[in-house]
Amino acid sequence: MMGGSLKLYYDLMSQPSRALYVFLSKNGIPFQRCPVALRKFEQKSPEYIANVNRFGKVPCVVNNDFRLAESVAIVRYICREYAVPAHWYPTNNSLQQARIDEYLSYQHLNIRADVSLYFFCTWLNPLMGKEVDREQADRLRRRLDKGLNFFEQVLLENGAKPFLTGDQLTYADLSAACEIEQAKIAGYNPCTERPHLSAWMAAVREQTNPFYDEAHKYVYRLAPEHIPTPTVPCDDDD
Amino acid sequence: MMGGSLKLYYDLMSQPSRALYVFLSKNGIPFQRCPVALRKFEQKSPEYIANVNRFGKVPCVVNNDFRLAESVAIVRYICREYAVPAHWYPTNNSLQQARIDEYLSYQHLNIRADVSLYFFCTWLNPLMGKEVDREQADRLRRRLDKGLNFFEQVLLENGAKPFLTGDQLTYADLSAACEIEQAKIAGYNPCTERPHLSAWMAAVREQTNPFYDEAHKYVYRLAPEHIPTPTVPCDDDD
Repeated sequence: MMGGSLKLYYDLMSQPSRALYVFLSKNGIPFQRCPVALRKFEQKSPEYIANVNRFGKVPCVVNNDFRLAESVAIVRYICREYAVPAHWYPTNNSLQQARIDEYLSYQHLNIRADVSLYFFCTWLNPLMGKEVDREQADRLRRRLDKGLNFFEQVLLENGAKPFLTGDQLTYADLSAACEIEQAKIAGYNPCTERPHLSAWMAAVREQTNPFYDEAHKYVYRLAPEHIPTPTVPCDDDD
Repeated sequence: MMGGSLKLYYDLMSQPSRALYVFLSKNGIPFQRCPVALRKFEQKSPEYIANVNRFGKVPCVVNNDFRLAESVAIVRYICREYAVPAHWYPTNNSLQQARIDEYLSYQHLNIRADVSLYFFCTWLNPLMGKEVDREQADRLRRRLDKGLNFFEQVLLENGAKPFLTGDQLTYADLSAACEIEQAKIAGYNPCTERPHLSAWMAAVREQTNPFYDEAHKYVYRLAPEHIPTPTVPCDDDD
């Protein structure tokens, strides 16, 4: 237990940063907020790379002298070092833990990649002055459609499972929801014609609020008008 | 301990399949070999998806009624359920475990993606009748160069660290080595002008042989002549 000294380096524009921010906040784990502005490439500064995260990414935690990157590794570490309700990542249930690990490994080259590639192609690249390749955007949109359909139909079993690995919220759900929210910024509503995915996202949000909304305030603000989002004040400087 | 009934579904052309095959073999964990021919798309067959892995991928294990995909999740599960020497994934050392988790999470969108994208573009796509896009191939080659340079210079600290997370071989090393070997099939020698990476790969191989060579027999055979590889007989049908 080294709560007082835990520093979280994050940007609320980063999906895994948001998941970790919500996870720490919801579980009452005290942490020092260390915002890193991706829009200013602060994560690539020599100081950040030398002193915080050699990968030049967010999120990262620093606990006394121990620096750890990668949200999934961080959550496992937090669950060992702090008092966290067992449902998040039940270390006393090998099969359930395996099922959560399976999703948290699977996501990188699937849901995370599906959403991020579409987001980069249609939102971030144009912001950086690069023209949108329509053919590529269409291809990535179909890939995202397919990934989210699989998520709803197979992983959530069309609503038969309220959460990804069963009846209880785990870190896999929080991680997945924060990834999927990102698509809204790019004008893609993941909930459209996906009632089970919508119900699941609403449940993840409901069980982690007010922190979920706090972490998503910029997502909500940046999403275009045709995508309904809650109104959350954005008045701080992180 | 449910050793006798463990089934491994794998293809030795798949990097994480090889890592898991070597890991189980080296640790004397009995398993039933269930080869899945990626070249025949057997991993996409309705039977495989319904009865083995809903993701339609390899590797996967089935232990009695429990099915688990994703090599990283599988290794953690095996380390909990079977007697595995602690150095592979020391569950009694939180910081060391965190460092291994960090690499195993990081790898997906970095070393694994770096190697796979180059391999797909320059070797697999042409095999499937698709022309190589030279511009894309050059870009992916530069990405792979950069990823492997980072691996050698930062992760291995230019040889100051014999293994990825310190003095001992862990699953992170085995996973990484099996990914990096794949580049050889595409005619890219990861060891060229990287003495520390070469020494590390030789150490991973040496500590896990004869299983490492057995798992890489097709890689060795498919690598073009200008890339030196050991001679290993390929006389079985997996």
